[in-house]
Amino acid sequence: MEFKLEKLEGYTPQIGHLVTQMEYARKTTLEAVTGLTTSELDFLPIKDGNSIGALLLHIAAVEKGFQIEIFDGRSPNEQEMAEWGAPYSLGAEGRKSIKGYPLEYYISKLEDVRNRTMSEFAALNDDWLYENRVWDHHPSNNYFIWFHVFEDEINHRGQIRLIRKMLTHK
Amino acid sequence: MEFKLEKLEGYTPQIGHLVTQMEYARKTTLEAVTGLTTSELDFLPIKDGNSIGALLLHIAAVEKGFQIEIFDGRSPNEQEMAEWGAPYSLGAEGRKSIKGYPLEYYISKLEDVRNRTMSEFAALNDDWLYENRVWDHHPSNNYFIWFHVFEDEINHRGQIRLIRKMLTHK
Repeated sequence: MEFKLEKLEGYTPQIGHLVTQMEYARKTTLEAVTGLTTSELDFLPIKDGNSIGALLLHIAAVEKGFQIEIFDGRSPNEQEMAEWGAPYSLGAEGRKSIKGYPLEYYISKLEDVRNRTMSEFAALNDDWLYENRVWDHHPSNNYFIWFHVFEDEINHRGQIRLIRKMLTHK
Repeated sequence: MEFKLEKLEGYTPQIGHLVTQMEYARKTTLEAVTGLTTSELDFLPIKDGNSIGALLLHIAAVEKGFQIEIFDGRSPNEQEMAEWGAPYSLGAEGRKSIKGYPLEYYISKLEDVRNRTMSEFAALNDDWLYENRVWDHHPSNNYFIWFHVFEDEINHRGQIRLIRKMLTHK
């Protein structure tokens, strides 16, 4: 397998770089959860912590949230809040509602959301990437925000690896 | 504060992008450990896990390792192995040797290593970033390898945040 950060067919140059980074992050996330059972996905590392399942859905929720904000230019509607609110915010609501699902459930959510990002990216260009956009009350641009999407995923992939290790020490 | 991925003064355009991502990752790592005491830095989340201190030194060790390989074009010498081998590999050796240090010790190691990377980057250009280089037995390039350096840091920052949360549940 080849791991290069460079131009990528189907995308403008910088969007290609971003896609490579996002897809590498995703590959490692999926590797980190391979073979986990429902009860392993539901395991809480600490009482007020998050399960691996909740973290997986959170990764999809963060990407979904920025799709709605950036591609659709609006806030989440009621139906989207009902589906994505808990995994986006994690915590108590997430612990209550995100459990009992097999690994395939999470993978399919991740894929559905990612597919839209990729098709939007294919139709956008590098100028768009550098357009200013507020992020978390700070001046930012689209490029940085999508960097944040994959860096948040990598952060949680690290946690998933640690929680998986804890599973063998229960 | 402004968070934009774009050209950065003092670096060629793509190196500037890389520096912004590396420095953002570092900022969040340092925020994640603010105020930790020596005993908190030594705390093991699981018996065969890694302390926050060991993870901080590991982050510096990974960067140091790629400096030696890429900037110096050689393998680590005996003295470098003695200093960086344990934090690079983590595990039992790390648990034995990395403890008893205050936060400042780790921060100063991180800064020393980072300073060299930044001064090397200032003298390099984007062509160098796209030069082929083998990474972990795979065809890769300098750009991807340095992406890996900061993505590995973010992975461990995620773990540090979780371990810190576990500290309050001991």
